[in-house]
Amino acid sequence: MEALKHAIETQGTVLPGNILKVNSFLNHQIDPQLMQQIGTTFAEAFKTAGITKVLTVEASGIAPAVMTGLAMHLPVVFARKSKSLVVKDDVYSAEVYSYTKHTTNHIYIEKPFLQQTDRVLIIDDFLANGEATKGLITITETAGANVGGIGIVIEKTFQSGGAYLREHGYPVVSLAQIASLAEQTVTFAD
Amino acid sequence: MEALKHAIETQGTVLPGNILKVNSFLNHQIDPQLMQQIGTTFAEAFKTAGITKVLTVEASGIAPAVMTGLAMHLPVVFARKSKSLVVKDDVYSAEVYSYTKHTTNHIYIEKPFLQQTDRVLIIDDFLANGEATKGLITITETAGANVGGIGIVIEKTFQSGGAYLREHGYPVVSLAQIASLAEQTVTFAD
Repeated sequence: MEALKHAIETQGTVLPGNILKVNSFLNHQIDPQLMQQIGTTFAEAFKTAGITKVLTVEASGIAPAVMTGLAMHLPVVFARKSKSLVVKDDVYSAEVYSYTKHTTNHIYIEKPFLQQTDRVLIIDDFLANGEATKGLITITETAGANVGGIGIVIEKTFQSGGAYLREHGYPVVSLAQIASLAEQTVTFAD
Repeated sequence: MEALKHAIETQGTVLPGNILKVNSFLNHQIDPQLMQQIGTTFAEAFKTAGITKVLTVEASGIAPAVMTGLAMHLPVVFARKSKSLVVKDDVYSAEVYSYTKHTTNHIYIEKPFLQQTDRVLIIDDFLANGEATKGLITITETAGANVGGIGIVIEKTFQSGGAYLREHGYPVVSLAQIASLAEQTVTFAD
């Protein structure tokens, strides 16, 4: 997606540890017009996938997920994060390890918002090792629902998440694929 | 706003302690079409206020704020929450006490995303005692920027936040005003 790549090239900052900071349009400040383009692109990519619900995790996933839901006329559910383990009868939960922060978070969704009949489109801002996405898959499948697709705004193809998800048969669409952040430079995969 | 009131009446649940649960369209599951209507309503209400930026706080404020930014063609910034005090040179921060959870959170915004020339529209999902909104005002004014307006999705007029803000001269627009949640029933102010 050209507008997204342009935003990454002109506004992104590469920090040590293969971190791409996109705080000016995605993670802290948000560009709503760009988010709408992202939403319509995901809607087009998954229009024949039989999706019934869009799923993401707070907080940075919400903007692209809501724009995707808007374009698809579907409800959006965002998983909440909790530092402590959430053991309650009325939620589905999963553990998510953050390689960046070296912490484990728990994410959860209240049971009424995920049904066995649901076919879920998972949307997230980043895909690196895929921990957050795997957590959302666990929650979806624990509920007896299906994953109909995974839409990622920025994928780091030099980390293992994307390969893992594709090998396991999940349809992944990434709008920008980054092959390297070496020498503090963004190199796209294509 | 009739569509919002209808959603509150048909999908809202009143819990003990004057808590209105609207998890099915605003706080956990999100109705993107309703959020878009909310965004265009705020954009219309503040179209002559000279707004340059929309400000909110993660996570539930993001969806209505992004739709407002979309309608106004303006960037959105969401303040991040932190349990611990954020003392860093590169952020503006404020303390926010939660009467519901009896905890103090800190919220912060990175300095580059708020300029002295900014005139901010604060958007939030709920206004009760106004703690979160006051935190966003503190951050805005610490940055030397101005508050041009405050847009609230659901205001509890029986709590003190709305009166405080209006007495202090801030233009507040609430799309649904709730006068009482007594006897587990929603009574609108008008």
